[in-house]
Amino acid sequence: MLYLIGLGLGDTKDITVKGLEIVKQCSRVYLEAYTSILTVGKEALEEFYGRELILADRDMVEQEADEILKGADTSDIAFLVVGDPFGATTHSDLVLRAVNAGIQYKVIHNASILNAVGCCGLQLYNFGETVSIVFWTDTWKPESFYDKIQRNRENGMHTLCLLDIKVKEQSMENLLRGRKIYEPPRYMTVSQAAEQLLEIVQNRRQRGEALAYTEDTVCVGLARVGAEDQAIRAGTLRQLAACDLGGPLHSLIVTGHLHPLELDMLRLFTVQPGALDNLKTLDSSTYTS
Amino acid sequence: MLYLIGLGLGDTKDITVKGLEIVKQCSRVYLEAYTSILTVGKEALEEFYGRELILADRDMVEQEADEILKGADTSDIAFLVVGDPFGATTHSDLVLRAVNAGIQYKVIHNASILNAVGCCGLQLYNFGETVSIVFWTDTWKPESFYDKIQRNRENGMHTLCLLDIKVKEQSMENLLRGRKIYEPPRYMTVSQAAEQLLEIVQNRRQRGEALAYTEDTVCVGLARVGAEDQAIRAGTLRQLAACDLGGPLHSLIVTGHLHPLELDMLRLFTVQPGALDNLKTLDSSTYTS
Repeated sequence: MLYLIGLGLGDTKDITVKGLEIVKQCSRVYLEAYTSILTVGKEALEEFYGRELILADRDMVEQEADEILKGADTSDIAFLVVGDPFGATTHSDLVLRAVNAGIQYKVIHNASILNAVGCCGLQLYNFGETVSIVFWTDTWKPESFYDKIQRNRENGMHTLCLLDIKVKEQSMENLLRGRKIYEPPRYMTVSQAAEQLLEIVQNRRQRGEALAYTEDTVCVGLARVGAEDQAIRAGTLRQLAACDLGGPLHSLIVTGHLHPLELDMLRLFTVQPGALDNLKTLDSSTYTS
Repeated sequence: MLYLIGLGLGDTKDITVKGLEIVKQCSRVYLEAYTSILTVGKEALEEFYGRELILADRDMVEQEADEILKGADTSDIAFLVVGDPFGATTHSDLVLRAVNAGIQYKVIHNASILNAVGCCGLQLYNFGETVSIVFWTDTWKPESFYDKIQRNRENGMHTLCLLDIKVKEQSMENLLRGRKIYEPPRYMTVSQAAEQLLEIVQNRRQRGEALAYTEDTVCVGLARVGAEDQAIRAGTLRQLAACDLGGPLHSLIVTGHLHPLELDMLRLFTVQPGALDNLKTLDSSTYTS
């Protein structure tokens, strides 16, 4: 049996009781290590489980999936994923490989950022499509998420922006020379994401285009959701660009229409007192206080 | 401290290790009992936790919140919610009351249907707005979710339909007479939801309107997600209307644009072999195989 087990978002103890029982009994346990991270590392998990973990990076999951599945027809193999196992596409691929090889699988669910963001008080069923914001470079500044945020806001929906993670990336030089030397991991911050969103708006304003959001649109920054030191800040996009939420992982929400109860919850997390007291009506989807 | 603890979706052991530790140490533990259910009852939870639970129905949470929060400034109170604590609006209300009373709170997240539906292989970031489908009566047949499904499908997005739960409902007679006699709980099935969706389409077709979906649109029915006996069936809306997925809780997904990998996953769950082999192109958002 292949078990795909979600670890939740915070630390070692966010695994479920069922998940922990299975981890202890499997013959091999892999830890997926590239779509998300916990606030604790592999060693802390190993100590808590009382057993060794095999780190599975993207190369391994995509190119050596057969190695991971080896023996899973007769013994139990666990594949641990931060959050819930079905947040990332690659794990569908692993499931399909297992099924094609006649291996049964079972999923042990857990919280993922996609539902845990509800902790800021925005209603989950008021979220539209989730978007990803990638690190810009000097020459590559994709804006594909902008249209999705626009569509969500036109419909009054909030947008959860998942922020880029660069793990095991090679520099262009090392890539070209085929050297497996990796850059230090990088995790996009709320401030960096907000800066990119502001730059898009400034450019579009100069071109005279209608704007999906502005510097004054209410946004929410979240860091280390589910961990002891989680941080949530609500404020305007401009305010969040100046906000330091500490270590990874960060997420950003661009709000749509705000229900009064949602606004009451956001006020628990304002960047500065009164930051949400004089909301302007920017368009049909922004709440007037 | 007020702890809001998610129980996940399946049975007793879907609580997190952290959640279980807190439950054992709190002075009072409430079990929220109206927005969702586990496949096991209060008694099984009490046995697993080794302690008594206080059932909190809607009346209690909405009208006696102060009772729930009593003493939480000096001792620890737990409020258990099936799924994740921030699936339903009422719990924001409880948090705000706590904060206003000077009581600290902490959230222990868990899987909810909103992220666990990923187990069918549809990508979570391809979902648009979530909708709720309520039980129709002879005289009340709301269709408000139809426009949302339409909007999602126009954008190629999947729609998660949460299906109605009627718990502690009074008959009109008992309500008028002020008798606190409650009807047996009712949980909408995938088949019932599909029937209602079909009826809407038939009516709109007769009126000559453009259709958001048809009898042949690919849908996914899910029952008891996360439980040992979970059931997932993929097929056309018409096929799902004839499908019996067993006991509650059920959810239905109306798909939008299907990525080939998503389709490969859905084929693991087809109502009948080959059910997804000859997909017609119904509109821009439906996949052509």
